[in-house]
Amino acid sequence: MTTVKAIGEQGLLQKLQRFCPCDIVGDDAAILNIDPDRALVVTTDMLVDGVHFSDRTTSPEDVGWRAAAANLSDLAAMGAYPVGITVALGLPGEVAVSWVEALYQGLSECLQCYGTPLVGGDICRSSVITVSITAFGQVISDRAIRRFNAQPGDAIAITGFHGSSRAGLELLLHPECGQHLDEVSKKALIQKHQRPKPRLDVLKHIEDASRAIAGMDSSDGLADAILQICRSSGVGAQVDRQKIPLSPALLGFVSPEQALEYALYGGEDFELVLCLPPQQAKMLVKRLGDGAAIVGTITAEPTIELIDSCGIHPMQTLTLSQGFQHF
Amino acid sequence: MTTVKAIGEQGLLQKLQRFCPCDIVGDDAAILNIDPDRALVVTTDMLVDGVHFSDRTTSPEDVGWRAAAANLSDLAAMGAYPVGITVALGLPGEVAVSWVEALYQGLSECLQCYGTPLVGGDICRSSVITVSITAFGQVISDRAIRRFNAQPGDAIAITGFHGSSRAGLELLLHPECGQHLDEVSKKALIQKHQRPKPRLDVLKHIEDASRAIAGMDSSDGLADAILQICRSSGVGAQVDRQKIPLSPALLGFVSPEQALEYALYGGEDFELVLCLPPQQAKMLVKRLGDGAAIVGTITAEPTIELIDSCGIHPMQTLTLSQGFQHF
Repeated sequence: MTTVKAIGEQGLLQKLQRFCPCDIVGDDAAILNIDPDRALVVTTDMLVDGVHFSDRTTSPEDVGWRAAAANLSDLAAMGAYPVGITVALGLPGEVAVSWVEALYQGLSECLQCYGTPLVGGDICRSSVITVSITAFGQVISDRAIRRFNAQPGDAIAITGFHGSSRAGLELLLHPECGQHLDEVSKKALIQKHQRPKPRLDVLKHIEDASRAIAGMDSSDGLADAILQICRSSGVGAQVDRQKIPLSPALLGFVSPEQALEYALYGGEDFELVLCLPPQQAKMLVKRLGDGAAIVGTITAEPTIELIDSCGIHPMQTLTLSQGFQHF
Repeated sequence: MTTVKAIGEQGLLQKLQRFCPCDIVGDDAAILNIDPDRALVVTTDMLVDGVHFSDRTTSPEDVGWRAAAANLSDLAAMGAYPVGITVALGLPGEVAVSWVEALYQGLSECLQCYGTPLVGGDICRSSVITVSITAFGQVISDRAIRRFNAQPGDAIAITGFHGSSRAGLELLLHPECGQHLDEVSKKALIQKHQRPKPRLDVLKHIEDASRAIAGMDSSDGLADAILQICRSSGVGAQVDRQKIPLSPALLGFVSPEQALEYALYGGEDFELVLCLPPQQAKMLVKRLGDGAAIVGTITAEPTIELIDSCGIHPMQTLTLSQGFQHF
């Protein structure tokens, strides 16, 4: 008997692919054309106690906020504005009512920031706390951001700093590591982990793009996002390590090498990684300000190189090997 | 500390109500107006191994079919045609890949019958098998079936036989009880439990209704559906036990008293319970044929009476007390 563990998440997804129409999956969210010119965008996420969150690092309010933020980020990654979310909740009978209310409080706080109603859900008994969220949004069909749209010559733009969420998690797990760090920086990094912000604000800046933009969010890390976009688009990329912005708080906490590692592989920063013509990318980065940057270029050759424009580090090839693997 | 178990599902739902806009919840699914004349209908369900299904009575194919059917039934209950569904799956690593494929096979078989695409999902690790489904549909706004639309004088129409699913479950749990029953009837009852059919086919027959119809599905039992509709609409009902159709297979399996009990409280028949003007109800029941019937009338007085037009049984008041209570 082959188990799920034996073939892993990717192996299982491949086996299940045949049950899904291939033209509507393979992005952060599914796209369904419900109108001649408008599409419904749908994304779903399941979070399990002890796997995706734990009382050690995350209050119920933060579990709620992060769950809502992750799903809204998937909509932003498709260029879609949110319409609503549903929440299905599995709960052991022993869970405190106050815990559940705090979860919903956090969810609501995040949703209110983005004008998104919680439109319903389901509650059931389970042996483990399970939160399953489905978010849906709308996008003008030809404005949808898709992973497969990247073209050689495109600039790779990121909408903000990376690595902070991973640093914040480290500070929560090992507070002693942060003794040398000032309180403001410490709080800032922890906040990035506990209360990430989906970048729905970016969408208004790319509405006048000359063509459909390629992109996704960086929930599984910046390296993963670049790799996924390149794989879907059949292209490669050259990324300059010197161009990846690292926040002062992050650099105050860990070495530059570690900071870059966090930025590339840490995940959960929920920024957008967008591929678009260089001139438009420059405009976008300028409008977004601090932390936004052009970090590289899409190439025809399908390898993803991490170069050093200062010539200090040798060229490396980016791989998914450090990415997060479920099961 | 007050636990979830202490206040129960209804108590918890009441506490969480304040986080949801009240105008879009309180039905089988949420309704969101995305157009001047069209609404998006969304419903979500979480199923947990050992709570909602077990290997003893349900193959993975049937778990998949039933999960899809229950969600499509919620759409039918709102008068909405399906657009797509998403599936989030929590799995222990030890689960066989073949089990997961069989689950998706059953899901797909049901979805294909109703032309509904599986548009995406999420897979994650969990200590217990958890299936969370969200279904989307569309309805012309003023054609939506809502629980609160019932009016005194309306006929209460049901779209098919009730009690068969509960009888099928009994046969699966205690095969020895069915020794006196012929194989065809046995199979038919078990089929009703394992492969319920969402009544999307009913919608085309009520498109020409003179006003918005009240109704819901009978997933939690016929009694529950009538009670919920009456509570939402601020009305009562008189239901005639002699008018509730009981299938020959069901009557071949259990006593008439037990059959009525199954029909009223068994649940999971996934028929529709609709309240509409008597003349239209008659037309509908005639079109639907076998098992469809007018079982009672909506009254201004807010009590729900189970009468016996043959005068054998005394009048009873219907309550939720025998309904299914989670936690």
